[in-house]
Amino acid sequence: MMNTFEQYESEVRGYCRSFPAMFTSAKGAWMIDAEGRRYLDFFCGAGVLNYGHNPDKIKQALLAYLMRDGITHSLDMYTEAKQAFIARFNDVILQPRGLRYKFQFPGPTGTNAVEAALKLARKVTGREQVVGFTNAFHGMTLGALAVTGNGFKRAGAGVPLGHTASVPFDGYLGEGTDTLDYFEALLKDEGSGMDKPAAVIVETVQAEGGVNVASVEWLQRLRRITEEHGVLLIVDDIQVGCGRTGAFFSFEDAGIVPDIVTLSKSLSGYGLPLALVLIKPELDQWAPGEHNGTFRGHNPAFVTATAALRFWQDGLLAEDVARKAGLVEKRLTDIVAKHAPGARVRGRGLIWGIEFDDTQLAARISQACFKRGLIIETAGIDDQVLKLLPSLTIAEEELRHGLDVIEAGLREALSVDNASPAIEAAA
Amino acid sequence: MMNTFEQYESEVRGYCRSFPAMFTSAKGAWMIDAEGRRYLDFFCGAGVLNYGHNPDKIKQALLAYLMRDGITHSLDMYTEAKQAFIARFNDVILQPRGLRYKFQFPGPTGTNAVEAALKLARKVTGREQVVGFTNAFHGMTLGALAVTGNGFKRAGAGVPLGHTASVPFDGYLGEGTDTLDYFEALLKDEGSGMDKPAAVIVETVQAEGGVNVASVEWLQRLRRITEEHGVLLIVDDIQVGCGRTGAFFSFEDAGIVPDIVTLSKSLSGYGLPLALVLIKPELDQWAPGEHNGTFRGHNPAFVTATAALRFWQDGLLAEDVARKAGLVEKRLTDIVAKHAPGARVRGRGLIWGIEFDDTQLAARISQACFKRGLIIETAGIDDQVLKLLPSLTIAEEELRHGLDVIEAGLREALSVDNASPAIEAAA
Amino acid sequence: MMNTFEQYESEVRGYCRSFPAMFTSAKGAWMIDAEGRRYLDFFCGAGVLNYGHNPDKIKQALLAYLMRDGITHSLDMYTEAKQAFIARFNDVILQPRGLRYKFQFPGPTGTNAVEAALKLARKVTGREQVVGFTNAFHGMTLGALAVTGNGFKRAGAGVPLGHTASVPFDGYLGEGTDTLDYFEALLKDEGSGMDKPAAVIVETVQAEGGVNVASVEWLQRLRRITEEHGVLLIVDDIQVGCGRTGAFFSFEDAGIVPDIVTLSKSLSGYGLPLALVLIKPELDQWAPGEHNGTFRGHNPAFVTATAALRFWQDGLLAEDVARKAGLVEKRLTDIVAKHAPGARVRGRGLIWGIEFDDTQLAARISQACFKRGLIIETAGIDDQVLKLLPSLTIAEEELRHGLDVIEAGLREALSVDNASPAIEAAA
Amino acid sequence: MMNTFEQYESEVRGYCRSFPAMFTSAKGAWMIDAEGRRYLDFFCGAGVLNYGHNPDKIKQALLAYLMRDGITHSLDMYTEAKQAFIARFNDVILQPRGLRYKFQFPGPTGTNAVEAALKLARKVTGREQVVGFTNAFHGMTLGALAVTGNGFKRAGAGVPLGHTASVPFDGYLGEGTDTLDYFEALLKDEGSGMDKPAAVIVETVQAEGGVNVASVEWLQRLRRITEEHGVLLIVDDIQVGCGRTGAFFSFEDAGIVPDIVTLSKSLSGYGLPLALVLIKPELDQWAPGEHNGTFRGHNPAFVTATAALRFWQDGLLAEDVARKAGLVEKRLTDIVAKHAPGARVRGRGLIWGIEFDDTQLAARISQACFKRGLIIETAGIDDQVLKLLPSLTIAEEELRHGLDVIEAGLREALSVDNASPAIEAAA
Repeated sequence: MMNTFEQYESEVRGYCRSFPAMFTSAKGAWMIDAEGRRYLDFFCGAGVLNYGHNPDKIKQALLAYLMRDGITHSLDMYTEAKQAFIARFNDVILQPRGLRYKFQFPGPTGTNAVEAALKLARKVTGREQVVGFTNAFHGMTLGALAVTGNGFKRAGAGVPLGHTASVPFDGYLGEGTDTLDYFEALLKDEGSGMDKPAAVIVETVQAEGGVNVASVEWLQRLRRITEEHGVLLIVDDIQVGCGRTGAFFSFEDAGIVPDIVTLSKSLSGYGLPLALVLIKPELDQWAPGEHNGTFRGHNPAFVTATAALRFWQDGLLAEDVARKAGLVEKRLTDIVAKHAPGARVRGRGLIWGIEFDDTQLAARISQACFKRGLIIETAGIDDQVLKLLPSLTIAEEELRHGLDVIEAGLREALSVDNASPAIEAAA
Repeated sequence: MMNTFEQYESEVRGYCRSFPAMFTSAKGAWMIDAEGRRYLDFFCGAGVLNYGHNPDKIKQALLAYLMRDGITHSLDMYTEAKQAFIARFNDVILQPRGLRYKFQFPGPTGTNAVEAALKLARKVTGREQVVGFTNAFHGMTLGALAVTGNGFKRAGAGVPLGHTASVPFDGYLGEGTDTLDYFEALLKDEGSGMDKPAAVIVETVQAEGGVNVASVEWLQRLRRITEEHGVLLIVDDIQVGCGRTGAFFSFEDAGIVPDIVTLSKSLSGYGLPLALVLIKPELDQWAPGEHNGTFRGHNPAFVTATAALRFWQDGLLAEDVARKAGLVEKRLTDIVAKHAPGARVRGRGLIWGIEFDDTQLAARISQACFKRGLIIETAGIDDQVLKLLPSLTIAEEELRHGLDVIEAGLREALSVDNASPAIEAAA
Repeated sequence: MMNTFEQYESEVRGYCRSFPAMFTSAKGAWMIDAEGRRYLDFFCGAGVLNYGHNPDKIKQALLAYLMRDGITHSLDMYTEAKQAFIARFNDVILQPRGLRYKFQFPGPTGTNAVEAALKLARKVTGREQVVGFTNAFHGMTLGALAVTGNGFKRAGAGVPLGHTASVPFDGYLGEGTDTLDYFEALLKDEGSGMDKPAAVIVETVQAEGGVNVASVEWLQRLRRITEEHGVLLIVDDIQVGCGRTGAFFSFEDAGIVPDIVTLSKSLSGYGLPLALVLIKPELDQWAPGEHNGTFRGHNPAFVTATAALRFWQDGLLAEDVARKAGLVEKRLTDIVAKHAPGARVRGRGLIWGIEFDDTQLAARISQACFKRGLIIETAGIDDQVLKLLPSLTIAEEELRHGLDVIEAGLREALSVDNASPAIEAAA
Repeated sequence: MMNTFEQYESEVRGYCRSFPAMFTSAKGAWMIDAEGRRYLDFFCGAGVLNYGHNPDKIKQALLAYLMRDGITHSLDMYTEAKQAFIARFNDVILQPRGLRYKFQFPGPTGTNAVEAALKLARKVTGREQVVGFTNAFHGMTLGALAVTGNGFKRAGAGVPLGHTASVPFDGYLGEGTDTLDYFEALLKDEGSGMDKPAAVIVETVQAEGGVNVASVEWLQRLRRITEEHGVLLIVDDIQVGCGRTGAFFSFEDAGIVPDIVTLSKSLSGYGLPLALVLIKPELDQWAPGEHNGTFRGHNPAFVTATAALRFWQDGLLAEDVARKAGLVEKRLTDIVAKHAPGARVRGRGLIWGIEFDDTQLAARISQACFKRGLIIETAGIDDQVLKLLPSLTIAEEELRHGLDVIEAGLREALSVDNASPAIEAAA
């Protein structure tokens, strides 16, 4: 059955190796494969499906648009669908939060948005250096890759990645050290060897990096330091924006206002490619056409993104996420306390991770869960973190079921682990 | 009416300034705006809509897939929709042409495909330099931008673009000079100061660069030189592949086989974002996950791309394009002979350009055409080229109508031009 | 008198602005200007004149060589003078210390030596990144400048400086923090965003950087970490080698053996340009002519450098330096305790600094000293450090005199400082 | 005898492999080795010894200065010796030629001068790109290496060399092509992919590159083009300045005035390291200390450089060089016509080359000459050029003797060549 892929698809393919099924359809929190097997989805397409698979609220809008031959592709010409999205996003998201941003639609992927944000920051400040954080992930094109921490991905560039510096994320040097002490020292000292940056780019929760959560205080201090030094603050909210941490923007809890925000993944609400760069009005110093991209006006995605904003017209979703977050945190803490006392549980909203010292364990749990019908991935530089990313709209019952499977998977993974030496001894 | 955009959308917006209408729907060769006005489309979303807007053959497949909750988003997991596309593309496109390539789906935009191709070429050869051509256009992310010629776009990077060299495209130094003499001299000479390249990346017709057409002989020699020196040849067929020049791949007429091919734009056939990198099997040296991208498995686009291959099951489309190409060439030659004798007409298949010495003229013609209900853009570094990009499936009658409008637009633009001094004199 | 310089010499000139005299001759610890005024030299040409000006022991050897028309210039051909130097340096310096190094003579300046060392480290390891430290100074050519901390000097490059990272030097983050914790964390973590380095380059005492002294323990740990990670250790001993800290090499006290050592400045012993790269034999993987430089065989400098080794045939000079170091440290500590309690005194051997919180003070002291016939410079990113660099062979009486002048200069500088507000108030 | 070097000196050593003697003294056009053997010098330390070895006119001034303890080392403080040099250079060289330049003394080697020139050009223009020519040689530090053509030297950098582009030197594309057509096309075309350069750096005769001579017309057009485009012109006169081509500056014959000129090698006249950057006054926008270098004030070299200017107080030297040039050209042309008809003779003043198609031949001739007591090196990317660089002050008799030896060496090299197949056949 997998012949087509193994024979013709590039060796670069990845997730299909962890989840070797051929998927055909999906609905809500569930995916179905060609053999009719159902999988509960705690992965959500790496954060694209915050509202679940093919949500009906959005689906109807999309079908209607396509059926009436609404314009599909338009580069950056004006369209009704884009106008509706901009207006609604303003009304539902920005204005209630007191935010004023201009909208740039770059190519419809996260890395395109990051590239646009970095270009603009460099243009506006006239500086070249951009600072990223240890274990950051911002994308695979050369500009975004240069602020990504992962050494394996970086080496894939085939050229040295420059005009960037990496400084330690919150918690990187252990409990006792405020890593911003170091960053601030570098900024203050003209002799630090770090050229003054145009911008700092940060994820408030490093998802790919291993579910590393920045504290509210750390984010506030980062905002303060960048302001003092005239350095722009870019929040890359591609994976943990759109409600993943509860609020629409992940930085709301810290009460900070970034200079530039990048969004993608769950923005269209339906898995359609769409990306958005939000820019403080005074920083919108682009010349017409200075940055472009063919699919920057993907209207079906504007339509679904507009429909998705219905989830945000009241505060219920955020409340719902908060309740589920409590449930997940408690359960994971219990599981760990019972079975893996040294492991570390961390997260915010509905992104959670368990970090194990044994770097093989998370992958074994993921496999054990997959056998049991749960899709859950690993994260972190050594894949040492089991990463939970259920949809925000998952039913509590489904959520509890998934957590049960995790516990079972963990027990199986540990028993294999413990058994191994015995087996070897016997052999 | 435009308030939303002018107030909230970034200054970077471009095409909407040339074509100031708000579009709502589209079908075949026509776009319709909010006021019900109809525009014949000689632009096709910069080459995305080779089969016209919302073609019914493809639309039905898309609607059916969405209605049955076919899986929308899946990263690079295995799906039925992807399997069908790979199999069909192999059967309909690759095998009949004797081509063997592996498929990589990068992020769903052209620039993502180019970035992947450059990374792979660098990895496989262990070299860093990539050679591009004068007036090339390959994308806006930093890796692709570094092989793009346009100085304004390059400056937008905000950092110097490196690990690349630019050499003259076919015809760049005038009729008498074979520009590959120079490139070959650089390659042969260890003292040339040009580090030995991993790859050369080329468009067989430079679309954005001004409809510059490489001759069959030049392409064949380029293939020969690159082979002799162990340099990979990447054909960027994003804008002029998928039948734009008649054959499915633009390089078929030259009888060459590139090492890597990039496709996007018209690949999905319906304006949905999709990109593909075709790789000679022996060069598929990617490690799993070494390059990735969230939307690399956009299943609705696989569905439409598979449906679009129906256009290629026989040779009729290519024949049709050839016939229309003759029609366009003849008519443009006549128009130019009559009204603008110094202008140069060039093209292949259904991509044509008229280059004027007066660099203001093409833009004025474009505006004059827009007033008459024809959407047509300009190209070239000074926008000195009027660029025709009608859909391949346009009816001959529509094509003739568009050409009539161009003639009228040209006459208006010229009369304004001639009139101006008089008006000024009178003033 | 200064007209020639002000009219014709570039604005880039620096030290002449601090010490506005025209010098004509010099002997031992003293310089004489055109008006016959004598200056005690606590600057020593930025570390070039460890044995004082025009020492007779060396002078006679140089004159004899020139008089007999010994070969002056020979690139890297074999000469008697070079042979004698290599043999003597081996006998007097390397063998007694159990060191085995090969000799590379790059162009005759420190920055040439650093460039050669960096190239070789990159070649041997096949990696591109080199790590330098905050406030490091390694030279002004692009390769060396990229590992130099000073932002003003870096900006002078006019291009971004890459392939390097800067990490905190010993003490950079205050007393409580071992800065190598951070560096080691980056090395261990594949997700740190710092590409694995070819080498680390370090000064054991950062002279230009403000007389920052690395502790023995820190250097030992740095050696251990670099060994564990297969990273080369380059000690740049250009300013503080050749006895400046007491031992011939500044790293001897720490008992470490660098992989590569760079020497220049006092190496020729007479102010003649000469530089040397010492390379562990197994790392000498240069191809013939892979790095070169016209003046890499400056024979008069070989002659004086050979003669200078007489200072090292017994241990007396090191003992002498140790005794003088004690004298300087005590006296500076007393001066500071009496007049400037918050200032920090630090140093090793005969390089000492006083760091003041008032960043104007050191420059004012330097000027006050110059008026009193003492040449002494400032260091540190804000010139906040008064830097003592007397010759190693200075007489104790001269040393005491210089320290007296410093005290007087400090008192004057402080009184002006304290007086200022009063004066302003009166005005 | 060679043990010391083979055992202890780095494998990077080069010239000693071609000329395996140990030299002890030298005078005029002759070098003497440890066994008392005398060698006529047609190499002159790669252009350092234009006035021969240890010329008495200069020697006396140097000895007198050293004996009276004139100041040796002074960084960029004012000294009598520097003042005298600046004043004399102005009087003897600049003013009579109507040139106005400011003097910058960088580190005392050619590559330091080039680095300073490139930095300044980038600063003044605010651009990063610098254009160099195919087969150029400007030095081994990273900035200068980036405008050097030689691929083997470039690879030695261990990092990619950027912010530069290489364009074809005069004659690079054969007789019929004016290579500046290409360069001008790139400059005019905003889409060329070559970022607008800060400066062009050029040698009027590429010495290391194979004695490639730019024509007067080509140099004049280069000056015109650079002026029109606001690009600075740097002439690197390090190897062919100081009279090598007859006039003091090699660009005088073309009647052009560069914006920046670099000098070194024969500047001190005695083999002492010294370098000079001449800067048009309006371009002297350095900040104090923005570029520095320890040995930038090497006073013994100022003393000898001042004495060397006596050679230029009348026009006799230039006349003398012109006469000898005629002699060399005629004789080389004859030799080639007689023995190696396909070889190409080219040169100006007293730098001449014979380029052979057989790339082994020049090295074999050099060896045959060395056996006969003549030192002569090869040049060009494949060492395919025999390069004559006798001192300007060589006696005609010595010059003729050297040319005789070359003929004998050529005959031997050819006979071995012709004999070889026979020998092989016999074997």
